[in-house]
This record gives sequence, structure tokens and C-alpha cells, in this order.
Amino acid sequence: MGSDSDLPVMRDAASILEEFGVKIETTIVSAHRTPDRLVEYAKGAVEKGLKVIIAGAGGSAHLPGMVASFTPLPVIGVPIKTKSMGGLDSLLSIAQMPEGIPVATVAVNGAKNAGLLAVEILGAFDKDLQAKVMAYKKQLKINVEAASKALDKLGINGYIEKMKK
Amino acid sequence: MGSDSDLPVMRDAASILEEFGVKIETTIVSAHRTPDRLVEYAKGAVEKGLKVIIAGAGGSAHLPGMVASFTPLPVIGVPIKTKSMGGLDSLLSIAQMPEGIPVATVAVNGAKNAGLLAVEILGAFDKDLQAKVMAYKKQLKINVEAASKALDKLGINGYIEKMKK
Amino acid sequence: MGSDSDLPVMRDAASILEEFGVKIETTIVSAHRTPDRLVEYAKGAVEKGLKVIIAGAGGSAHLPGMVASFTPLPVIGVPIKTKSMGGLDSLLSIAQMPEGIPVATVAVNGAKNAGLLAVEILGAFDKDLQAKVMAYKKQLKINVEAASKALDKLGINGYIEKMKK
Amino acid sequence: MGSDSDLPVMRDAASILEEFGVKIETTIVSAHRTPDRLVEYAKGAVEKGLKVIIAGAGGSAHLPGMVASFTPLPVIGVPIKTKSMGGLDSLLSIAQMPEGIPVATVAVNGAKNAGLLAVEILGAFDKDLQAKVMAYKKQLKINVEAASKALDKLGINGYIEKMKK
Amino acid sequence: MGSDSDLPVMRDAASILEEFGVKIETTIVSAHRTPDRLVEYAKGAVEKGLKVIIAGAGGSAHLPGMVASFTPLPVIGVPIKTKSMGGLDSLLSIAQMPEGIPVATVAVNGAKNAGLLAVEILGAFDKDLQAKVMAYKKQLKINVEAASKALDKLGINGYIEKMKK
Amino acid sequence: MGSDSDLPVMRDAASILEEFGVKIETTIVSAHRTPDRLVEYAKGAVEKGLKVIIAGAGGSAHLPGMVASFTPLPVIGVPIKTKSMGGLDSLLSIAQMPEGIPVATVAVNGAKNAGLLAVEILGAFDKDLQAKVMAYKKQLKINVEAASKALDKLGINGYIEKMKK
Amino acid sequence: MGSDSDLPVMRDAASILEEFGVKIETTIVSAHRTPDRLVEYAKGAVEKGLKVIIAGAGGSAHLPGMVASFTPLPVIGVPIKTKSMGGLDSLLSIAQMPEGIPVATVAVNGAKNAGLLAVEILGAFDKDLQAKVMAYKKQLKINVEAASKALDKLGINGYIEKMKK
Amino acid sequence: MGSDSDLPVMRDAASILEEFGVKIETTIVSAHRTPDRLVEYAKGAVEKGLKVIIAGAGGSAHLPGMVASFTPLPVIGVPIKTKSMGGLDSLLSIAQMPEGIPVATVAVNGAKNAGLLAVEILGAFDKDLQAKVMAYKKQLKINVEAASKALDKLGINGYIEKMKK
Repeated sequence: MGSDSDLPVMRDAASILEEFGVKIETTIVSAHRTPDRLVEYAKGAVEKGLKVIIAGAGGSAHLPGMVASFTPLPVIGVPIKTKSMGGLDSLLSIAQMPEGIPVATVAVNGAKNAGLLAVEILGAFDKDLQAKVMAYKKQLKINVEAASKALDKLGINGYIEKMKK
Repeated sequence: MGSDSDLPVMRDAASILEEFGVKIETTIVSAHRTPDRLVEYAKGAVEKGLKVIIAGAGGSAHLPGMVASFTPLPVIGVPIKTKSMGGLDSLLSIAQMPEGIPVATVAVNGAKNAGLLAVEILGAFDKDLQAKVMAYKKQLKINVEAASKALDKLGINGYIEKMKK
Repeated sequence: MGSDSDLPVMRDAASILEEFGVKIETTIVSAHRTPDRLVEYAKGAVEKGLKVIIAGAGGSAHLPGMVASFTPLPVIGVPIKTKSMGGLDSLLSIAQMPEGIPVATVAVNGAKNAGLLAVEILGAFDKDLQAKVMAYKKQLKINVEAASKALDKLGINGYIEKMKK
Repeated sequence: MGSDSDLPVMRDAASILEEFGVKIETTIVSAHRTPDRLVEYAKGAVEKGLKVIIAGAGGSAHLPGMVASFTPLPVIGVPIKTKSMGGLDSLLSIAQMPEGIPVATVAVNGAKNAGLLAVEILGAFDKDLQAKVMAYKKQLKINVEAASKALDKLGINGYIEKMKK
Repeated sequence: MGSDSDLPVMRDAASILEEFGVKIETTIVSAHRTPDRLVEYAKGAVEKGLKVIIAGAGGSAHLPGMVASFTPLPVIGVPIKTKSMGGLDSLLSIAQMPEGIPVATVAVNGAKNAGLLAVEILGAFDKDLQAKVMAYKKQLKINVEAASKALDKLGINGYIEKMKK
Repeated sequence: MGSDSDLPVMRDAASILEEFGVKIETTIVSAHRTPDRLVEYAKGAVEKGLKVIIAGAGGSAHLPGMVASFTPLPVIGVPIKTKSMGGLDSLLSIAQMPEGIPVATVAVNGAKNAGLLAVEILGAFDKDLQAKVMAYKKQLKINVEAASKALDKLGINGYIEKMKK
Repeated sequence: MGSDSDLPVMRDAASILEEFGVKIETTIVSAHRTPDRLVEYAKGAVEKGLKVIIAGAGGSAHLPGMVASFTPLPVIGVPIKTKSMGGLDSLLSIAQMPEGIPVATVAVNGAKNAGLLAVEILGAFDKDLQAKVMAYKKQLKINVEAASKALDKLGINGYIEKMKK
Repeated sequence: MGSDSDLPVMRDAASILEEFGVKIETTIVSAHRTPDRLVEYAKGAVEKGLKVIIAGAGGSAHLPGMVASFTPLPVIGVPIKTKSMGGLDSLLSIAQMPEGIPVATVAVNGAKNAGLLAVEILGAFDKDLQAKVMAYKKQLKINVEAASKALDKLGINGYIEKMKK
């Protein structure tokens, strides 16, 4: 991530990766404030053995695209919500990359999904991990079904009451 | 892709993948018009040996997200430009996925980058392919440098004249 | 609805339908987390005797459009407000459906109107219900007229004071 | 519709309704230029035996919402594309209705879907018509499958060549 | 105005008009909830001796445009801020009127300016009132100059401290 | 207007004013290129006997607001469509004026409506002119009714054929 | 700046300029409320010895552009965040200037960057100041590196805990 | 500039600088395709004697911001119009820079103004150049006055006829 203010959002990416048992490395590299560090970091990523890079940034969100310029690895970009534009600026800055340098963009503040996307990428080449993804998606389904059953039982108002607690 | 009208855009994804020697499978599956086919296709993707799925769609662009719901594979979404909204509708429909089901979104009409992103994902686990990505990015660099040299030689107006030819 | 977090908004649809004495069935079906359940639910809707389906969703709001893909029934979509985009993403994801699969879209967070629209649809074939719709709209009118009279009597500042209580 | 300039778009609604054998009545009523006519038309709609009203309008698109104010029938609004805003103005003017007066909004220039939505509404109370809707959706599916087969046979470039003819 | 919830915003229009000694009439007329009342009100406006009508509305803000349809008087529209769209919907619904039926649109929540615009219109035919407008604008100037002098004296931080009190 | 490139749009304002027999004065004054001329023009407007000023501008459209700063007369602003933003920039630059300095904003490229609004303002104090406005609106109505009759007679396709001629 | 309500934002520009030892002059000049003062101020700026002018404004943000019309000095515009539009209106009003009259626009509420940009402009002709800019940027880098080290040491959750204090 | 496709737009910057007799250096440096070249170029700019850098880019327009990260010189960014978003993406990507790294953003496709802004910056430290800026602005004024006189003489329609030739 590019700034420690992005940390509370980006933490979700780290958490989900850890949940899946994926080894991660977390650092703060700013496209604008530590550009040399960015160059060095992105260039050394393959050699270090990294497989996927997740980069979050807000506003003129250059970090994901610049990392992608220096590495052949897939780069996932997380647009951070901004106070003035709600993150539309971040989303466009990250998604609208020119031909030749893709960035895999997720939703505004979608750090958790960035982590999951990384897991899916790794899982495409690791059957055990892919099985965990399938189990995870199954769990999502079970949760929705449980919520639906609770809704049947409690009624809408009862359910909302329960949510408030 | 979801409609044959998306074909002239999505062809770029196929072309670049072929350029990199990646085996592909191309089909038309519509989230809205052939939803059962979508379910079947997405559910069978892992077994078929697919590693990455690229899905392009415009407007209420549900195809990439729905495919992602049925598979643990990474799904890349290409927002197709629309006549009324320029593709902002497609971009938001694809990028703003809920927690648990990521889609790797590229630029509006960014099919070529979707293909490259797929190559980068495969390349993370295939050193030869990754080397080709590095060579490709190097070639982009060489092209820019050549253009820059031509610009030095021809001057701006001369260069623009040459571009018109 | 696709998630229990949509419940506080979607409750308004249920409430108004109950107010009109329309029998309803409420459930949580997620396009992305329980896609099979969605398919099954939507496909079975006609046989169950449903006449209209109301679906609310936010962000990449695929639920209404996907339900519409699997049923010949009219589907009403409620775009849920989102934190980053204010619901513009939801609105475009629901309204901009491709030819062949319409979704009747209402305002952002417009669950109450979704309920009313369902009542109007049913009322087109049920004179008693239609009469209730007319009575409801008449009541809206009476409320505005009463507010207008209160405004005449209390003056603007007096009225605003009363509103605060 | 509110102006004869909307006719080339709105014709699609009429065509699809005729295709389904639904009896229609077409007229030009402008919210702004013939407001009295609008009032009269909307108030008399139930008595005339209308079941659904489709209204198309662009820019400050008041026609659908104003018709809805005067009738208990379901009103479907078609936002017409505008030169300056691409139809975002029309979409927001039609979709963002206040509580109590819903309008079933379809996509920008989505007149065909407005017609289909009307058919679905009528079909909810007419098994024959509903069967036609199911057949129609099946035909959409068959068309996509045929396109997909043609794509398999011709390849992408061959298919695009064929599209140009 | 169309709803009593608009009152806290629209009060500013009434206040400034009273400040200028302009006789006003305030009422709640909803385009959607009391459409007949709207017709009657707008049609009778000239005969009642009204010179300018100010109408505020939010979302699908039809009130100003519909009033303008029924009267030859100048109509000033105030787009009310909305929760989901910040008032962009209201602004476009009011400003983007079709040829033949203008509405004089002011800023989102710009009720005070709507009042001032009405005063300017009346002042164009009433030298005394126009003189008051000039005096008012002069006072604005004096206030800014005073603020500027205070800023010189207190410095930025001192000034901000004073503002907080 | 601020530039002769705005002339083809702004001509509509002049034409409609002449159609109503209103005396006009047309000139090019640029907020940015001839700011002194703007100051002089706006300050002298009352003395010259002007009653209403219409100003059109595109992009950072400062002309209407700056004219309004220097005169107590009502100022009508016409946002000119722009190549990159479709006129959203012009609309926001003109409509979002601060408290104290209103501009009566019309639709993007709405010069004709600007002229009509000026006529309505003058008509509020000139019964003959107001009668002409009423006659004009009646004529709009007659035109729509004639179109509607022609539509009844020719059918949709016949009517569209006729439009093309 | 154009209003004392902009002061809490614009203070950042003054602070950073003082931090760099640049002599500044702060005043409140409103394009709309004190237009004559604006003319006088902008015209006299060169003679006074000013080198760069920073102007902040919100909504129909005319101040920077109008100052630029009256002076050959570089003008930096700061779009102030607005309640209804988040500052998109301010940004477009300032950035979309017509040919001939540039304004150097920074981010919404980017007053600190406006100050830094002014320092960079002055620094291009003052080696000592330029050295300070380089030192400043180096400090930014050191801060990020320190944050990164702290992150390594504390872990994400530990770091976030520390941030809250 | 970042791509030779930007050349027809960016040429205007070069032309106006040459018109003012300012020595320029033109090159193609892509943030994404030649990131190392960007780093080298930006780092060496001060030593080479550059005073201002103009950078144009479209979409995820990272070039201006990245150049600014590596140099203490003022950087002017030109957002290039894009096919899908009209340049809104470019504008936000360039303008919304984080604290510490400003970019002086001009209008979409505003290369001429970027050149003029550079001249104004240089002119702040070069009285002869500043005098030329004043003469240039005077010429703009003379052109507008000439257009205004021609308009008086030819009338609106005559003038438009002349424009077409």
C-alpha cells in the first residue's frame, strides 16, 4: 500500500490471505513519495518468489499501475475510497490502464476481494488451495442459507432486531 | 463473451493469448439469455482444465460476476463500451462486486489487457511464459524509444505527417 | 434480497405489501453467494404461483437481472445505496439490462415504491386492489393538503419547529 | 411518448407488443407541451381498459412520472438518450421518483424491454401469453447457441467477417 | 415546494424575499401526490397576480417543470439535495427541460438564490427594489472586505479561532 | 456570448426573442479574454435600459456568473455543450453559484429556452407579451396534437417515413 | 480565497509556504461578491512583485479563472469540496478553462499541494529553495520508510492500534 | 508525452512555446512502457537546466504524477480525452494527487494552455517574456472585439455564414 492511512482498508487483504494459509509480505511503498523504492521493489518481486502483488491506492492512484510497469507478475489494484469523490477517482485511475500494462482492479475498498482473487490465482495451480476456495464459497452459501432460515423464523422485524444486537 | 456484438472488442483478448502461445477456448455465453449454459460452463471450467476465464459484457454487465459465482478460478472482466454511458455502467457493474466473489476488472474495452493479465497469471507459474511477458514489455519499451527517436529526427509536424500515412 | 444487510431497506417493500393485504414470501437469495439457489428459486417461481418478484441489490447488483433471466414473471429491481458511489453503481447495474431481459428499476433505496409497483401490477387485474391503490394515492394527496394547511396556519418557522418535535 | 422525435426509439416497444399479439394504443402526449392532455389521458386510462402504460421521455423526463401521478396502473418509463448527457439525465429523472409514485424504469433507449416488461406483466395473468414469453426467452437462448456454434465453426475472424456482411 | 421535508431548505427563499419586502405566498403542492392541485395552482397563478413562481423539488424533481407547463410566468427551480446522488438527479431533472418550457434553475439547495433571482426579476421593473438589490450586493462586498481586514489583523489562525466561536 | 464559436447555439435565443418582438442587443464579451469589457458591459446594463441579460458559455463557464456579479439585473446562463464532458462542466460552472449571486440556468445548449425565459420575465410586466407566451405554449400543444393525429393516421412506421423526408 | 469559509482549507497553503520561508500575502477576494476588488487585485499583482497567485473556490468556482484573466502571472486554483457534489463542480469549474487563460489546478481541497507547487515554481529560479523542495521530498520518503519499518515491527494490527492513539 | 497517439494534442503545447520563443525539448516517455526512462528523464531534468515539465497522458494517466515524484521542478499535466470517458478518467488521475506531490492540471486536451502556463511561470522571472504574455492576452482581447464588431456589422446570421467559409 502507498500510505499507512490505507492500512485499515488493506488489512482485509492480509487477513483473508492468512486465513487461506498463503504466505504474504506487507510493506508500504508510495508511487509518489518513495518512487525509487517502488522501482526496486517491483523489479525484485519475481526473484523474491512473489507470485501476485496487491497494491492499494486512492485519488490519483498510481501505485498499482506503476508496479505493473516494472514486473511481469499479475498486479491486483484496490481503489481506496476518497473523501471528495467516493473513490471514483481511484477506480478510474487504476482500471483505465493503457494497452500492454494490465491491472486487475477490484471494487472500491475491496481489499478482501483482492486477497481472494490472489488466492484464486494461486489456487489455479494448487489443487489444495483451490479446494479451500470452493469450501469458502460454500461457506458463504451456508451463511446466506442460515440467514434466510433465520429470516423465515424471526420475520423481517425480528431479524432486524437481532441484527442490531 | 455474452453477445456476438462484443466479438470485435473481445477478439483482442484471443489474439494476444494466441500471440503468447496460450491455448484458449472461445464461446458465447450470455448471463441473461443463456443462464443455464452459463451455470454449466462455469461449473465445468475447473474440470475442463481451464486456469483463467475472461468474460466481457456491457451495460448491466453480469456475465463476469456470475461466472465468478460458480467457479473457484480467477475471472477477468472486460467492461464493453456502451452507447449511452460510454461504458461507465459496464465498469461499475463488473468492478463493484460484493465481498467473497472478486472479478479482476480491466479498462473499458480493455480486452487486450485482459488477455495479457491472463498471460501474467499463467506466467507466474511458468517461467518460459513469464520470460515472454518480460520480452513483450521490453518490446513495448523499444517501440516507445523508436517513436521517440523518430520524433527527434522528424520533429513534431513531420512525425504527425508520417502518422497519417 | 441478496444479503441481510439489505433488510432494513427492503423491509419497506414487505411492509407496504402487507398494508395492501398482498400475500408475500420473503427470502435471502444471493446472485453471487447462492447462485444455485437463485436458479432454483427463479425457475420455480411461476409454479409456486408468484406473480411479481422484487429483488434488491447493491454495487454490482446482479440479483434482479439474473432472476429475470430465469423467469417469465415481471421482476422489480431495487438499487441499494452504496458507501462509495451512493448507489449509482447499483442503479446502472440494474437498469441497463440488455434487450430481451427487462428489469423494472425503481429509485435508489426505493423499496417502498417497489412494493407499490407490485401492488399496481396486481391491481391491474384485481379491481379491489386497484381501488386500494387509488385510495392510497388519495391519502397521499390528503396528507399534502393537510401539511399545506398546517403551513398556512403555523407559518414556515412554526411548521419547522413542529417538525422537529 | 412526449415528442415525435422519440418515435424511432419508442417504435421498438410497439413492435414487440404487436409481435406478442398484445393490443396497443399509441399516442403522443407531452408532459410539458400538452399537460392537460396528459392529465386527461392518464385519468381515463383505467376506464378505457388499459392495463399498463409505457412512457418514453428524454432530459427532464417528466412524462412517465406525471402519468403515474394520475393513474393507479403500472407505468413503465423509457429514458431516451440525450445529446449532451447520453441519457443519464433521463434515467435519473425517471428512476428517482419519490415515495408513493413508482415508475418501472428500463435502460436508456430500452423501449423493446419496456414492451417485454409489459408483456411479462400481462403474462402473469394470462398463461398463454406467459408461455409466449418463455418461448421468446428460449428463442434468445437458441440464437446465442447458434451464434456460439457459428463461432466455433468460423473462428473469431471468420465470424466477424460474416457479421460485416 | 413539493413536500414538507423540503421546508428547511426552501425557508431561505421565503426569508430573503421578506427581507426585501416582497409579498409572497407559500404552499405545498406536489407534482406527484397532488397533481390536480398543481394544475389548478399553476393555471390560476397569473390571475392571482403572481409574477414569479419558485418551486423546489428533489430526485425526479418534476414540480418546477410541471408548473412551468401550465403558466406563462417565469418559474425558478431549486434542486433539493438527495441522500443517494447529492442532488445531481434533482439538478438534471430540473435544468434539462425541453424546448418551449424553460425553468430558471439555481444551485443545489440554492433556495436563497432563488429568492434573490425573483427579487432581481421584480427589480427590473421596480427601481426601488432594484436599488435594494444593489445595496444588498454592496453589503456582500462590505462583509467580504471586513472579513479581509479581520484576516489581516488576526492572521489566519487567529481568524479561524474566531470563526469557531 | 463569450466566443463566436458559441454563436450557432446562441442564435436560437436571439431568434425566439425577435419572434416575440422583443428588442435585443447582441455582443461578444469574454469573461476571460475581455474581462474589462465584461465589467464595463455588466455595470452599464441597467443604465442602458436592459431588463434581462442572457449569457452563454462552455467549460469553465464564468461569463454568466461574472456578469451577475456586476449587475442587479436577472442573468440567464446557457451552458454550452463541450467536447470532452458533454456540457456537464458548463452546467455545474453556471448553476452552482454561491449565495448572493444567482444565475438562472437553463439546459445544456438551451439557448431557445433562455430566450423564452427572458420573454416570460418581461411578460410578467407586459400583458400583451404574456398573452403571446400563452399563445406560443398553445401552439406547442397544437403541434403535438397534430403530430398525434398524424400518428393515428399514418401508423408508427408511416410517420417515421414521413419524418425522414 | 473567495470566502472565509474556505479558510480552514486554504490555511494549508499558507502554512507550507511559511514552512519554506516564502513570503506570502493572504487576502479574501470574491469573484462574485467583490468583483471590483478582484479586478484591482489581479491587475496590480505584477507591480506589487507577486510571482505566483493561489486562489481557492468552491462550486461555480470562478475566482482562479477570473484572476488569471487579469494577470500574466501563473495562477494556481484549489477546488474546494462542496456539500452536494463533493467538489466535482469546483474541479470542473477551475480546470476546464478556455484556450488562452490557463489555471494550474490541483486536487479537491489540495491547498497544501497548491503551496508546494508555488514553491516548486519559485524554486525553478532559486537553487536554495529548490534544494529545500528536494529535502522535503526526501523527508516524505523517510517518513514512508519509517512507517514501513514500524509496520514490519508491529504487524498490521499493532500498527493500526498505534495509529488510533 | 506518453504515446505518439497523444502527439496531435500535445503539439499545441510545443507550438505556443515556440511562438513565445521558449526553448523546448520534446520526447516520448511512457510511465508504463518505459518506466526506467521516465525515472532517468525526471531525475536528470534539473541538471539539464529544465525549468518546467509538461506531461500529457490519457486514461490511468500516471505520467505527470510520476514525473513529479522524481523532480523538484513544477510539472504541468495535460489530461488527454479518452474514447470511453471523455477524459474524466484522465482529469481525475492527474488532478487528484496526494499531499506532497502536486501536478498543475489544465483542461482536458488543454495542451495549448499547458504551454501558456509554462510561459507564465518563466515570465514571472523574465520581464520580456512576461510582457509578451501581456501582449498575447491583449491580442486575445483584440480578436474578441473584432469578432464583436463583425457581429454588429453582419448580424448573427451573416456572421455564421462567414464562419462557415
